[in-house]
Amino acid sequence: TSTTGSTLAPPAMAPLTQAALSIINVKTHVLIIFDMKMPNYTKRRMFFVAFLGVSGTNAALAGLGGDPVGLEVWRPAATKDDACVFLRKQPANVRVYFGRRIAEERNRRLRGAFILERFVPSTGWIVKAVQCTEEEILAAAGLDAVVFNRILVFSIRIFSLAALLCVFGILPLNYFGQDIHHVRIPSESLDVFTIGNVQVRSRWLWVHCVTLYIISGVACILLYLEYRHIARMRLRHLTRATPNPSHFTVLVRGIPKTTKESCSNAVDDFFTKYHGSSYLFHQVVYKVGKVQKIMTGAKKAYEKFKHFTDTSVDQSCRAITYRCCLCGAASNTFQLLPTELEQNQEKTVLKDSILKLDDQECAAVFVYFRTRYAALVASEILQTSNPMKWVTNLAPEPDDVYWSNLWVPYKQLWIRRIATLLGSIVFMFLFLIPVTFIQGLSQLEQLQQKLPFLNGILKKKYMSQLVTGYLPSVILQIFLYTVAPIMILFSTLEGPTSHSERKRSACCKVLYFTVWNVFFVNVLSGTVISQLNVLSSPKDIPVELAKAIPGQATFFITYVLTSGWASLSSEVMQLFGLIWNFVTKYILRMKEDTEFVPSFPYHTEVPKVMLFGLLGFTCSVLAPLILPFLLVYFFLGYVVYRNQLLNVYRTRYDTGGLYWPIAHNTVIFSLVLTQIICLGVFGLKESPVAAGFTIPLIILTLLFNQFCRNRLL
Amino acid sequence: TSTTGSTLAPPAMAPLTQAALSIINVKTHVLIIFDMKMPNYTKRRMFFVAFLGVSGTNAALAGLGGDPVGLEVWRPAATKDDACVFLRKQPANVRVYFGRRIAEERNRRLRGAFILERFVPSTGWIVKAVQCTEEEILAAAGLDAVVFNRILVFSIRIFSLAALLCVFGILPLNYFGQDIHHVRIPSESLDVFTIGNVQVRSRWLWVHCVTLYIISGVACILLYLEYRHIARMRLRHLTRATPNPSHFTVLVRGIPKTTKESCSNAVDDFFTKYHGSSYLFHQVVYKVGKVQKIMTGAKKAYEKFKHFTDTSVDQSCRAITYRCCLCGAASNTFQLLPTELEQNQEKTVLKDSILKLDDQECAAVFVYFRTRYAALVASEILQTSNPMKWVTNLAPEPDDVYWSNLWVPYKQLWIRRIATLLGSIVFMFLFLIPVTFIQGLSQLEQLQQKLPFLNGILKKKYMSQLVTGYLPSVILQIFLYTVAPIMILFSTLEGPTSHSERKRSACCKVLYFTVWNVFFVNVLSGTVISQLNVLSSPKDIPVELAKAIPGQATFFITYVLTSGWASLSSEVMQLFGLIWNFVTKYILRMKEDTEFVPSFPYHTEVPKVMLFGLLGFTCSVLAPLILPFLLVYFFLGYVVYRNQLLNVYRTRYDTGGLYWPIAHNTVIFSLVLTQIICLGVFGLKESPVAAGFTIPLIILTLLFNQFCRNRLL
Repeated sequence: TSTTGSTLAPPAMAPLTQAALSIINVKTHVLIIFDMKMPNYTKRRMFFVAFLGVSGTNAALAGLGGDPVGLEVWRPAATKDDACVFLRKQPANVRVYFGRRIAEERNRRLRGAFILERFVPSTGWIVKAVQCTEEEILAAAGLDAVVFNRILVFSIRIFSLAALLCVFGILPLNYFGQDIHHVRIPSESLDVFTIGNVQVRSRWLWVHCVTLYIISGVACILLYLEYRHIARMRLRHLTRATPNPSHFTVLVRGIPKTTKESCSNAVDDFFTKYHGSSYLFHQVVYKVGKVQKIMTGAKKAYEKFKHFTDTSVDQSCRAITYRCCLCGAASNTFQLLPTELEQNQEKTVLKDSILKLDDQECAAVFVYFRTRYAALVASEILQTSNPMKWVTNLAPEPDDVYWSNLWVPYKQLWIRRIATLLGSIVFMFLFLIPVTFIQGLSQLEQLQQKLPFLNGILKKKYMSQLVTGYLPSVILQIFLYTVAPIMILFSTLEGPTSHSERKRSACCKVLYFTVWNVFFVNVLSGTVISQLNVLSSPKDIPVELAKAIPGQATFFITYVLTSGWASLSSEVMQLFGLIWNFVTKYILRMKEDTEFVPSFPYHTEVPKVMLFGLLGFTCSVLAPLILPFLLVYFFLGYVVYRNQLLNVYRTRYDTGGLYWPIAHNTVIFSLVLTQIICLGVFGLKESPVAAGFTIPLIILTLLFNQFCRNRLL
Repeated sequence: TSTTGSTLAPPAMAPLTQAALSIINVKTHVLIIFDMKMPNYTKRRMFFVAFLGVSGTNAALAGLGGDPVGLEVWRPAATKDDACVFLRKQPANVRVYFGRRIAEERNRRLRGAFILERFVPSTGWIVKAVQCTEEEILAAAGLDAVVFNRILVFSIRIFSLAALLCVFGILPLNYFGQDIHHVRIPSESLDVFTIGNVQVRSRWLWVHCVTLYIISGVACILLYLEYRHIARMRLRHLTRATPNPSHFTVLVRGIPKTTKESCSNAVDDFFTKYHGSSYLFHQVVYKVGKVQKIMTGAKKAYEKFKHFTDTSVDQSCRAITYRCCLCGAASNTFQLLPTELEQNQEKTVLKDSILKLDDQECAAVFVYFRTRYAALVASEILQTSNPMKWVTNLAPEPDDVYWSNLWVPYKQLWIRRIATLLGSIVFMFLFLIPVTFIQGLSQLEQLQQKLPFLNGILKKKYMSQLVTGYLPSVILQIFLYTVAPIMILFSTLEGPTSHSERKRSACCKVLYFTVWNVFFVNVLSGTVISQLNVLSSPKDIPVELAKAIPGQATFFITYVLTSGWASLSSEVMQLFGLIWNFVTKYILRMKEDTEFVPSFPYHTEVPKVMLFGLLGFTCSVLAPLILPFLLVYFFLGYVVYRNQLLNVYRTRYDTGGLYWPIAHNTVIFSLVLTQIICLGVFGLKESPVAAGFTIPLIILTLLFNQFCRNRLL
């Protein structure tokens, strides 16, 4: 059967070794010659089909590889929170806290095995989380998890140094900056610890400037080292990856309509003609019509019903059906249709879906190539003179394909991209209105006027303290919870073809949103109108920021406590998962769905960590009191997130480390912003030397960024 | 000898036809399978070497192809200007006005053949210039000339329509806009023809708005058609191009230094290992040391001396030596060194340059491939994990290589690019200082104070009119003449490896400079300080522009007359060339150098035409009186430039139509700027309907631009 395969493949391609041709470029795909081992053509095709079935594959699990981490590793588990430890040890909740493990170890014996340790708080999980090596994380949770881990490590390193320098160097300077009578430290206002307390034209401002230099320099060096490390790891990850069908597959979109022949034939003709030496076969993805949709829906309803009535514990591998959150159609309304070649063997299986499909629009086609090199070359080059037709991209991994978006016509994409960009910008600004409105309401007297029945409660002193102190932060927090789903929705509308791309795009959007709405709006905290005035004169922005930041330090410390620490403990607790588990298990009495394990929400966690990094950098020199709190946050985060990545979440798809460029750019932005604010502060303090020395620092940081782009991006 | 060539080439690559794989993408290179016809390996290498000799090739001329345009075509030649006709017909000046022809027709009999027609003005050249088809221009002057021609055609088309609409539709509206007593038209102030004369809240402003819509819409449609036409032409140009060695050659830079082996061996090893199936051989470009430089210099001086004393007319093909304007080293201080394989045959020729070259830095290498496809793939992919090493690009054409820049280390390029960018921005702003200073001096009384000996002259009325009317424009003009060489210098410092790239980059710089310094500075005409105030509040810019443009219409009409028309006639006259020819021929008594024919200065002419386009668009609706003058300019320019391209300049290098994207972007910028200014004007006139309808127009124009980027760029 291997007639076509062996003779046509270019013989001289083989000596190309992996190391030299591979692209470490984090932005593009790797270029590796990698011929599949299986010599048999039919077998190989079966392999592809099996991997690329719409749903119900466990390829990701199979690909996790390495020696399986056994149950004994995570058995003596406990938590930081006592409540959490209690909950975590209950076998009923084991799915919430060890989802990934359970999904992996489906056929081993599990719950009910440990009873004695259940109610004793233990710290073993912390030790496990800290001791676990990077290779273990990579094996268990993929490259993205490692990147997230490196972001935390970078933050801990740089902020340890910053805390050391600023708390012991700058804090005393600020504190004794003015000749005032100091009362006992605990009763002192927090403002005396900021740079606002330093005298105008102080001789000591050069210390601030030097500290800024040291922090910026060390941050750049660490950034470079981390980037190089991650780039190498990405290269290794890509070259050592187990044979993955996506490496040999190209996703073709924008196929021109022809009246004469079917879409499948057109694709076959095109690729046989222009990539004859390496073209293997193809799979057309059709958008199924209304009738088909109803039929599928009915079938699914029947299966759900069967599933409800079925009382026996089903431990076999079942299909996961993702729901498209946009059009409401489930993902298996899309079907991989067999080509003529394989109709013989698969007719019996897919018989009903072939009905009346000839007149459907041809949306996308997966084309398979003989070698990884050929697939890559085919995906990189332009196929025709019209760049909107025959668009080729490397296909995402089978589990990563976002089926609902495959039907989106390619020529719509650019307009969708612009529309979502505008939409998210509008959302970013509209979000201000309810927040400022509610924050205004939280002023006590207004609240009492509007809601008179609260009068009795609000008169108590601790209640009024709670309301004025915590309410704005809590309201902001609650509103922020709605942001991630909305941004995911925007990213879905954009039309990415893979889950990972969608999540990454949402991550960027959430990041911009967070930085704008939490940092800038609070810094320039006032009404919407005063901000617009600031925006209209860009020259004054550094000065405005310089005035605002030291004053806002208190708010930011509160924010680190309420938002940072609290979010970590809720992350450990998994409140939503816990409640959901309780509801399904004890109220709805549904059978446990061991397949459904959430994947790590990078699109909310990366922006959160980056925001705290931004707060740390901007406050470091100006109001160093925030740094110890932040450092505690990062240490806790390091432990918690490692545990979550190892035990709770499952990695179904992976961007391959593409979150690092986002983190890199955000850190550079934070550094430059810090330097600009310091420039403004030094200007306000009338210290021309310090201000003058800050300008070359800004230029150097930008040059460093440019260098990294050239060298590593 | 053809042992390696035929067996290793992938056999299945051949059926790839040109049409489908070729890239019309104007930004990147074309992708065509193109196997060379010569089967003999040695012959093929000789072919390459012959083509890539450092200097003295006439490949460009040989490649011009088509049936040679004979002498009889241009014999009955005359000019528009009588003086020019007179000069043009003198056989002594034939080199100035027919440089390209003479260079082509070196071995035919020439001067002294026509005597009768010499002193009779004739218009035949205009007919010739207009009648000549696009194919003839393409054959004679390359794709860039056609693109330049299309820019002029586009301008004529859109401004014919605009003139028609605005002169017959808007001009009467403006003129009768207010109920004032109109005197005779010739003695009317020019301001009554601008929109400034229309009443506030006039009912007729919708006419302006509709005209703006029509002009923008037609401009977009024309832009799209032109772009598609040029993209197709570029594709045809690239697919039909005669076998050019540059298509098979990759320029490799950033070769890592090894202590063990020579650079040549390292390159050989690398490409044999990773591109073994298609790698042919390579040529190392060394930077020659000091001793070698002196030797070459001495040799050249000797040759010059010999050339002076040689009285016989030398009609044979001689080498052109380009001078590097930066380091002062002539281009043939760089030598193509033979590889080991060919040392046997060429040792005798290049013996002296092999001396002591082993310790030189290895700057760049030309690597030759067997097929065009292989060279392209090799140039597009990343070779190693470090993107700053083994950098591959398709080599420029032999005549296009900018040898002096080949030695620039690749890792310097990014910093050079940033430095030149900053340098040119600083230059753009510093340029304001002398210009405003001198323009201030041109105020009569100040001039009389500073230079009292001029009193007598300035008291005459016509002199004072001349000084106040023309001096600012003339001074601006003279200063503008220094811009192009400085921008070329900046572009050289940037480190491009080809002449065409250097000229294109200079073209962009000159364009930005012209638009900023001629348009914006004059519009916001006042002192430097008032401009800075405008810049600090971006919201007010539309309003400021709206106030300024109608007032500046008079200046712009003068500018079209003094700068536009005058520059065209000086272009026909070729003043500099004429003087230089006179000096060399009759004063220095040097022998004519028929080889030296200038190439068309796209970097000054494209920005000039684009600037007049910008003036036309911005003034069209607001002050339509400028349009007839502009239209005359474009018609004259069409005739003059076609003649110049056909007869005067020689095309040694060609970007392949890459000037069009610049023109496209500038037109889009002009349109959006016009719309923003109109928005400001409608706002000032308190017409909410017209202003409201302008906003969607801006959005539509930007969307159209985005579409073109996706579809064509």
